[in-house]
Amino acid sequence: MRHFIQACLIVLLFSAALVTRAEPPATAEALGLMRGSPPDDDQLVTVENAFLPPYNRWSFLHMRELFPTRGIEPSASASALVQEPIDIRSIPVSLANDRQITAGEWLDNAYTDGFIVLHEGKVTYEQYLNGQNRHSQHIMFSVTKSFTSALILTLAEEGLIDLSETVSRYLPSLAETAYGDATVQHVMDMTNSIQYDETYDDPESDIGRYFAALAPGGRGLYHHLTTLDKQLSGYAHGEAFQYVTPDTEVLGWIIRSVTSLSLAENLESRIWKPMGAEHPAHYMLDPVGIELAGAGLSMSLRDAARFGQMILNDGRYNGRQVLSASITARIKNRRNTEAFTSYYDDPWYHVVAEDYHDQWWSYRGVNAVVALGIHGQFIYVNSDHNVVIVKQTSDPFAEGTRVDNETPLVMHAIAAYLGSRSGVTD
Amino acid sequence: MRHFIQACLIVLLFSAALVTRAEPPATAEALGLMRGSPPDDDQLVTVENAFLPPYNRWSFLHMRELFPTRGIEPSASASALVQEPIDIRSIPVSLANDRQITAGEWLDNAYTDGFIVLHEGKVTYEQYLNGQNRHSQHIMFSVTKSFTSALILTLAEEGLIDLSETVSRYLPSLAETAYGDATVQHVMDMTNSIQYDETYDDPESDIGRYFAALAPGGRGLYHHLTTLDKQLSGYAHGEAFQYVTPDTEVLGWIIRSVTSLSLAENLESRIWKPMGAEHPAHYMLDPVGIELAGAGLSMSLRDAARFGQMILNDGRYNGRQVLSASITARIKNRRNTEAFTSYYDDPWYHVVAEDYHDQWWSYRGVNAVVALGIHGQFIYVNSDHNVVIVKQTSDPFAEGTRVDNETPLVMHAIAAYLGSRSGVTD
Repeated sequence: MRHFIQACLIVLLFSAALVTRAEPPATAEALGLMRGSPPDDDQLVTVENAFLPPYNRWSFLHMRELFPTRGIEPSASASALVQEPIDIRSIPVSLANDRQITAGEWLDNAYTDGFIVLHEGKVTYEQYLNGQNRHSQHIMFSVTKSFTSALILTLAEEGLIDLSETVSRYLPSLAETAYGDATVQHVMDMTNSIQYDETYDDPESDIGRYFAALAPGGRGLYHHLTTLDKQLSGYAHGEAFQYVTPDTEVLGWIIRSVTSLSLAENLESRIWKPMGAEHPAHYMLDPVGIELAGAGLSMSLRDAARFGQMILNDGRYNGRQVLSASITARIKNRRNTEAFTSYYDDPWYHVVAEDYHDQWWSYRGVNAVVALGIHGQFIYVNSDHNVVIVKQTSDPFAEGTRVDNETPLVMHAIAAYLGSRSGVTD
Repeated sequence: MRHFIQACLIVLLFSAALVTRAEPPATAEALGLMRGSPPDDDQLVTVENAFLPPYNRWSFLHMRELFPTRGIEPSASASALVQEPIDIRSIPVSLANDRQITAGEWLDNAYTDGFIVLHEGKVTYEQYLNGQNRHSQHIMFSVTKSFTSALILTLAEEGLIDLSETVSRYLPSLAETAYGDATVQHVMDMTNSIQYDETYDDPESDIGRYFAALAPGGRGLYHHLTTLDKQLSGYAHGEAFQYVTPDTEVLGWIIRSVTSLSLAENLESRIWKPMGAEHPAHYMLDPVGIELAGAGLSMSLRDAARFGQMILNDGRYNGRQVLSASITARIKNRRNTEAFTSYYDDPWYHVVAEDYHDQWWSYRGVNAVVALGIHGQFIYVNSDHNVVIVKQTSDPFAEGTRVDNETPLVMHAIAAYLGSRSGVTD
């Protein structure tokens, strides 16, 4: 995991070359990754290079073959996904600098592994590339956070968690840390005050120490959490949004603590099986067996779409009320815009995103929320147009223009097209 | 993995205490292993202590949570296992030194995790202990070898492998090693000449270097295989049996090489799905993604029983001819007794075991073959009495009296009882 830092540096070095290439990205198979018996040394994917391009073309589809994992069993009978194919490939999309492209052309060149579009609950488009198939379980990175949130909100409704209580009520061992007097809701919205450097180019930075805690032989997530302090001079709890992945690990810890069950057991029994998941899923584990609540889930494209559709459907799916309508309403409609740009001056936070709340992002100018993970993972829920889109990706870049700016434009264009089409035919 | 050596030493130190205890072995739950959030430090199971007692009470049921693994999918519809309960617990068993015990009493005190008995294909007894259940996937250690063998024999029948050819024909990179001019059949029977020290108390020994190659950051199985030499003064290929786990890794490499598929893909498509497996299974992987063909499979109790029953049924199971009758006939009937005690003088090889052939053991005095793994893993196929028994165990000892001597006596007694009962009622 610590080589992630190295990955980012290499990505920066090669960015110009990658961005200007015209042909579609090379697949894991074309690159020869993990082919042959044994593969050539330079085609081996290992724990050390798994987060580096081009090795991530293979690793993102095979996390359990590289790391310890805890499985989540699917439903005995999968919920139906009705097919109603619509050509979305020719939809025009306007990118920055007046660049015009079609959705299909963009997708073919965007390191897409899986892409699915649901309109009014029906599958209008489903595409697999780079060796992915229906059964593949693809790492979702921070999309995982939105699943953790769903569990927190469910447990709050059951009375096991009070969102307005402090973290230290549930986790006394964090009493003396940054989290001690932050409320659960602060952590859900990432407005808790914390001194945390989430830049990736310094192994001594906080995120560098986080990766070290996760690496084989590391002391694990929980230990890392006990080392974190509040901002000494800065904002107070609740005043400003700051994106800090370990926040979600605190939420995972609370879930385990109040249920005495693993995160995997909670997700399986409360969401995965009730929603009729078709395939297993799994969490990456830290060296002491703790699920990565902030980044560790791998799942199939279709099951990610089922989760999004369940949110869109006010929590109803597979003939069940999987989440309550009040939970899905707050995910879709609540906004925390005031705090959102109080700390960051990243232009993206002013132009593309509208807020971050309950471990979900919302986009500006559309009625859409999104669970979002680095390297191009998305579960997009557009309430105006009754559209759910999932993209699973092995982009060489963790973040950047293609992933963070172009993907929403493409998804908005598809949603608007399907919405307008619905208006015409209805 | 390298701590396995340490495990063996600790086992030896505490052996007297463990053997004389009267109460049933403590379960993982009673020991508090991996309980709590987080577990106490001395109740954490990690890569470092996973093969040490008492941590193995938990780890043997949770290998994928500790190591990288490759999954094997079950059949879409599991083959039926008809239930016909018979009380086997009160069957008397005579152990060494005229010690009399019942099968049930012995099982309760033998670190049993799962135990199932099939007679004439029907489940007469099925018991889960220590937190195991129907769905649990339990590490089988060297039972894995007998699955590798089934794949080799299938590929031989298909003409992809010639058992009388040398290993170097299929794996040129082993031409200069101990395996170069050994035939595939020599390796199947472990009668290839090899300088290999499989005692566990020296990290510089061959098996010590094998564990180091498997550990995170190690160079992997294949590299280890290229370092092995023939016996300089000793037996020639084919003359004497010597139990060498890496032999089976050579067989796994041959399978991958001639099929261009992983071992998991081969097992899933050729055996696991055809036999109607009810649950997934998985292989542990080395640091470069190679399945441990000699020790890496975890599977459910029932699926292990299905495999044994398929062997007993001349390869027919689930309405399919999963393996050919000639393959299962050689597994059950072939013997390689002449070479068996030419190298070893271990009394066990003269008293309990009859031979080792095609990666299966046979027992003396009964018409039974067995796939056998350390710490008490067994798939037992008794042709005289039409009985299959599987035992999954987290014994603190890798080998020893309980595992190697008492278990066969208990299984023979159960088989004989069921066989005689069948004679009475028919």
